Amino acid sequence: MTKLDEFISSNRERFEQDLRQLLKIPSISTDGSYRTQVAEAADWVLAQFVELGFRTELIPTDGHPLVYAESAPVSNRPVALVYGHYDVQPPDPLDEWISPPFEPTVRDGNLYARGATDDKGQMLTHVKAVQSWIETEGTLPMQVKFLIEGEEEIGSPNLSHFLQSPDAAKRLACDVIVISDTSQFSKGHPAITYGLRGIAYFELILTGPKQDLHSGTFGGAVANPANALTKMLSALVNDEGKIQVPGFYDDVEALSDRERSQFSALPFNERSFMEQLGVAALAGERGYSTLERRWARPSFDINGIRTGYQGEGAKTVLPNQASAKFSFRLVPNQNPDAIAASLRTMLEELCPAGITLELKEMHHAPGFTVPLDSPYIDAAAKAIEQGFGHSPVFIREGGSIPIVSRFTDTLDAPTLLLGWGLTDDNTHSPNEKFSLADYHRGIKSSAHLWYELSRIAV
Amino acid sequence: MTKLDEFISSNRERFEQDLRQLLKIPSISTDGSYRTQVAEAADWVLAQFVELGFRTELIPTDGHPLVYAESAPVSNRPVALVYGHYDVQPPDPLDEWISPPFEPTVRDGNLYARGATDDKGQMLTHVKAVQSWIETEGTLPMQVKFLIEGEEEIGSPNLSHFLQSPDAAKRLACDVIVISDTSQFSKGHPAITYGLRGIAYFELILTGPKQDLHSGTFGGAVANPANALTKMLSALVNDEGKIQVPGFYDDVEALSDRERSQFSALPFNERSFMEQLGVAALAGERGYSTLERRWARPSFDINGIRTGYQGEGAKTVLPNQASAKFSFRLVPNQNPDAIAASLRTMLEELCPAGITLELKEMHHAPGFTVPLDSPYIDAAAKAIEQGFGHSPVFIREGGSIPIVSRFTDTLDAPTLLLGWGLTDDNTHSPNEKFSLADYHRGIKSSAHLWYELSRIAV
Repeated sequence: MTKLDEFISSNRERFEQDLRQLLKIPSISTDGSYRTQVAEAADWVLAQFVELGFRTELIPTDGHPLVYAESAPVSNRPVALVYGHYDVQPPDPLDEWISPPFEPTVRDGNLYARGATDDKGQMLTHVKAVQSWIETEGTLPMQVKFLIEGEEEIGSPNLSHFLQSPDAAKRLACDVIVISDTSQFSKGHPAITYGLRGIAYFELILTGPKQDLHSGTFGGAVANPANALTKMLSALVNDEGKIQVPGFYDDVEALSDRERSQFSALPFNERSFMEQLGVAALAGERGYSTLERRWARPSFDINGIRTGYQGEGAKTVLPNQASAKFSFRLVPNQNPDAIAASLRTMLEELCPAGITLELKEMHHAPGFTVPLDSPYIDAAAKAIEQGFGHSPVFIREGGSIPIVSRFTDTLDAPTLLLGWGLTDDNTHSPNEKFSLADYHRGIKSSAHLWYELSRIAV
Repeated sequence: MTKLDEFISSNRERFEQDLRQLLKIPSISTDGSYRTQVAEAADWVLAQFVELGFRTELIPTDGHPLVYAESAPVSNRPVALVYGHYDVQPPDPLDEWISPPFEPTVRDGNLYARGATDDKGQMLTHVKAVQSWIETEGTLPMQVKFLIEGEEEIGSPNLSHFLQSPDAAKRLACDVIVISDTSQFSKGHPAITYGLRGIAYFELILTGPKQDLHSGTFGGAVANPANALTKMLSALVNDEGKIQVPGFYDDVEALSDRERSQFSALPFNERSFMEQLGVAALAGERGYSTLERRWARPSFDINGIRTGYQGEGAKTVLPNQASAKFSFRLVPNQNPDAIAASLRTMLEELCPAGITLELKEMHHAPGFTVPLDSPYIDAAAKAIEQGFGHSPVFIREGGSIPIVSRFTDTLDAPTLLLGWGLTDDNTHSPNEKFSLADYHRGIKSSAHLWYELSRIAV
């Protein structure tokens, strides 16, 4: 690997120029007036693979195209699928940018531009890694497929569509999925995110009288949907943070001792976390640390409530309807469908006479973990150690990444979330940045990843 | 009283013409472009009293003027104060009126016009009654004072101001207050409303983290203000409709057996009440009938909640703030200040760590009843029996009438709420009406009222 490492080291300037080129294209997927520029970014990415001699395809969709590329098959070696996206968030508010969002500018070793970390910079580390292999070895030690989309920032509607098509599973067939669209745990602590929580999101609509009533004339005579809503929602979790939906914890995958000790060894400071959030105390399920609660225990949060009068001053109204959006974060092995069914039964039992209930299942996704003893995790850890100079930490993430569960639905392969970014990279905010040192470390890690993965017996 | 009755009977047409004149003036208090017309209505009312030889005064305010008038003092007789208003609600939506709102039109014995029942028609019954006394007897059997305002439909800001002035108590000093701005219980059941519930209205604002958070990344780690709000509000009332604020029921004036049997004798049909509201069941405090719960028992209603995401679809937000407006209906003898203090203590104890609480006391008013054995109630009942041909029913009302508590704050006198209107008179709606038969019955009842009241020893 010395030759490869030297190549990567001596091509730093060239790889930075390539990233700058891509960052100059304002590929804002949500804004129809940038359609040409989004297409230009797709073409630019596609051209990278054409130049490497990959089999390439620009897959048209009802929205922005998918860029697909694959290197030559290598028999008896695993196949990897790299996912990333070439679209970016809008740069507003523009006047808060120190340098213009589409004029990449270096300050203090960081490259500032919209998309620098999310996801052009991180995605490109894998492209530059395969390029380094091709330009030094003439080939890759395993087959690597790339699926780079242009609609991640608008919820990946057409990629989801594509993944449901009959031949998607065959075309994308792989042993491992690699995504670099997350972050290091903290500066100098590159991370392998080996688990995500799932979600089950609901909307509850309670309807009482056929119209709003005067709370003086009618208060005390009929069930008030807003009162009922607070009763029903508050019954879903107890004061110790335990969710009360029957059977909710039945399938919960418990935290292993290894995970608990790994989490507790992480440089996580509760005091500065509280300062960051502006709260005087943390809260949640009793018996678990804050990282455990965020990453590996289920939670229940009301996301919004709408009922009655919300304006200035007082209005003596007994509202005829009250609705709430709320969601459970799920951990691996929990079954969203079973939970939805149990929730429905519980709410129907709680619903008072005189109120009708509508429960909408908005969306759900299961949680996932890659087993820590998986050879893919081991390979990624070794690669990151080469790229960053020390071993990664193993973390989980409390959110769900919808595209991950969509891949998992279609493909029977574990996902490696390898984050090169930093949590203060201003993703989705003005002055987005990406550390150039981390860009190069990412390229080197990725180059070593193909070597390490290629050694796994399949 | 025969002479008086005959006079009233033979002047029906003339009294109707007077009402039509007043109804033609679009005295819409909330709309600045009708300022001249509001003043015209004030002048018209004032002129009525000038003609009767009353001592009159047009009291200017920062808004619309107060019309004040008083008949000559009669020693050793009680003094009554009649309150009413000459302003009206806007007539919108105009296209739903069958005849124009300011062109009084008779259909089926009803006079249709904005203000017909609320309150020009009802108020004028008392003016025509004193006129009948003056034109037949040359004098009244007791002193009657009139305070007719022009801002009732906008919350009586300047009357409230006037009532707080140092000499208001002296100028308005009286033994009984008479207001006709309510309704009969139902057609053919004229009512004396002898009690109103009070109110204590609050806004609760809970604040958690300094900004909205992602519910995936942070859910389970910090207290969610929306979750906390449902916990805190649901703790305020139990499933049997009993309010849980400590001491809440300590001073509650119990319903007397006489009241309970009077309520249960009223022609109130639960089935049609449910149909009217569009509910499959009624609800509220266990152990009390629906009318008891509406009129004479406290209640707790959430009037509005605002938190988090309220738009279409799903947003995985952990809101940083949640707020609710809610109110307790109070019954006589409950002390709103004591309840507010107890509520504050309770909520502070319920508020979880990591959340800060702000409780705003929006407004409150005590409930009131006039004792059923009061001689004033007795006098009013006799008068109504003369006017309507049969005795009134005794009812209470679940709402509070703010102006009543403001009068009660200033004047040490019971209030008689004598409603001549009907509940389907379309108050505040298109096609407002007032039964002409009820108008004349009201005039006759009022004329008899001054006679009956004058016989009470003071």
